[in-house]
Amino acid sequence: MQPLATLKALAAAVALSAPLAQAVEPIAPIEPPTGVNSAKAAIGKQLFFDPRLSKSGFLSCNSCHNLSMGGSDNLPSSIGHGWQQGPINSPTVLNARYNVAQFWDGRAGDLQEQAAGPIANPKEMAMPHDLALEVIASIPGYLEAFAAAYGDEAVTLERVTETIAEFERTLVTPGAPFDRWLQGDEAALSDDEKAGYALFKDSGCTACHNGPAVGGGMFQKMGLVRPYETDNPAQGRYALTGKESDRMVFKVPTLRNVELTYPYFHDGGAETLDEAVRVMGRLQLGREFSDSEVAQLVAFLKSLTGELPQFALPVLPPSAPDTPRPNPYGP
Amino acid sequence: MQPLATLKALAAAVALSAPLAQAVEPIAPIEPPTGVNSAKAAIGKQLFFDPRLSKSGFLSCNSCHNLSMGGSDNLPSSIGHGWQQGPINSPTVLNARYNVAQFWDGRAGDLQEQAAGPIANPKEMAMPHDLALEVIASIPGYLEAFAAAYGDEAVTLERVTETIAEFERTLVTPGAPFDRWLQGDEAALSDDEKAGYALFKDSGCTACHNGPAVGGGMFQKMGLVRPYETDNPAQGRYALTGKESDRMVFKVPTLRNVELTYPYFHDGGAETLDEAVRVMGRLQLGREFSDSEVAQLVAFLKSLTGELPQFALPVLPPSAPDTPRPNPYGP
Repeated sequence: MQPLATLKALAAAVALSAPLAQAVEPIAPIEPPTGVNSAKAAIGKQLFFDPRLSKSGFLSCNSCHNLSMGGSDNLPSSIGHGWQQGPINSPTVLNARYNVAQFWDGRAGDLQEQAAGPIANPKEMAMPHDLALEVIASIPGYLEAFAAAYGDEAVTLERVTETIAEFERTLVTPGAPFDRWLQGDEAALSDDEKAGYALFKDSGCTACHNGPAVGGGMFQKMGLVRPYETDNPAQGRYALTGKESDRMVFKVPTLRNVELTYPYFHDGGAETLDEAVRVMGRLQLGREFSDSEVAQLVAFLKSLTGELPQFALPVLPPSAPDTPRPNPYGP
Repeated sequence: MQPLATLKALAAAVALSAPLAQAVEPIAPIEPPTGVNSAKAAIGKQLFFDPRLSKSGFLSCNSCHNLSMGGSDNLPSSIGHGWQQGPINSPTVLNARYNVAQFWDGRAGDLQEQAAGPIANPKEMAMPHDLALEVIASIPGYLEAFAAAYGDEAVTLERVTETIAEFERTLVTPGAPFDRWLQGDEAALSDDEKAGYALFKDSGCTACHNGPAVGGGMFQKMGLVRPYETDNPAQGRYALTGKESDRMVFKVPTLRNVELTYPYFHDGGAETLDEAVRVMGRLQLGREFSDSEVAQLVAFLKSLTGELPQFALPVLPPSAPDTPRPNPYGP
């Protein structure tokens, strides 16, 4: 082959490989939801906002996974029935469909399994499942909706959690500046944001924070290089497995919309992104980021804020005269 | 004048007076909002949904005036900071612009004055006004919005309450079947609903429940003919005026969307419309409605459910690193 032909072949190969180069980035764009069962998702949206799923009639899924606030409650740990202090920071519901498992310790396999937990948890919504189902089944508007979605009016825990999960699958946030850049729009990121992403990769953050959700895909020890100091008693997956190697091993949280989901970590121990980045560097990477590095990393992280789901505030079907009434103050 | 001419003149007069006949109904249709300052209302919508106006960071205006639930919380009395039991039933914010004054005892003259109350009330949101303003003024997204609406970034209590009130002025519910009937659509009401309305007028309910909001326009004693028995200590306007004649005198609540705003009365003492109608008949009118009368009155009352405000769930601007953090559990 002559030198010129070699050069031409090389140029052609480079041109061909441009899409491939993009494909090897450790982060993939968030895709708009597809294949949603809209009848089920519509029920799930109402149930997500319905405080009648709680004993008090006051707490809904949206109380702690507030879709006005990045799908979280922006509190170190959540407030449950009777103003009980929850044990752990409320993870965002946004892009939760990408999580390998649900809850910080991964004890629920998927969104549907997760949805059942807080309803009945005496420290959260404190509503026995049987009573929750009785309430829903007494509300004519829900019965009509279930009949339309499933062909009959039966209100079962499986259907209730399936519809909530179907709604939650719609809660994705495409269109972040970072995703637009991933998809080829060079101007979507500033130089600082690009430098922050380069540093994010080079420092090894992407070992855990990768995939479309920039996290959520694996479990990792909190305090890999140095131990994490906290008063919070949560021990991560150790509580499930009893294995010493699972102590302080939590699901890696998504960094999508992390600008909105403060405070950070399973105990809500870091109030700002700046603080969270420094602690992560120190504890997980054994590295002390400089002020300018922190600023670049934070700039990159803020570029992960996507378009939040836009939908009309759901209007809930009213209770009927025989609907069991809430019990906010009683035993 | 010849007989035929007389008949023609009479027919013309009747045709001309049809609008007049309608005008003498004691209830007027709800009109869509007009003259709204959309920049201010947009801020007010965010603030209405923003739990950062509470000490805990957990309670917003929407917690107790839930726009998914008829603008109320459907609890006998509301839950405040630290799960304190509120003293009174949360009145709906829907069509509250028509109220002669705000709160059950009318102690606030208008929506703007009302909005300041629950924020600072230690039993409700428990947030000192100074701190609430400091929080809002620390949030870049709010500063931009205030600058756009007012020409400068100053965050004052007057502006905060003005924007909330401006949003609340949009919370009206036109298009109820009853209003469509008022406006000439004979088919908008069933025979039972029409009979219920006739009974509503003939029994004297419209002496208090009149105007566009079917209430809200005056004060009246709860227990006019027979005393109202309740454990609730509220004494109505007596608390403001000290006058014996104001004891148990409350603002007449709106009956718009009353199907959605259970339980009823200032103490939430009646769980169903059926019960509320019977108690009202007995205590205010000295009349025992029959079962079929109750059914007709309830049918009429349900025809007052209008089109609830439809808007996208607001997305709140995130806190900044220096935003004062919520204090849900501390002193």
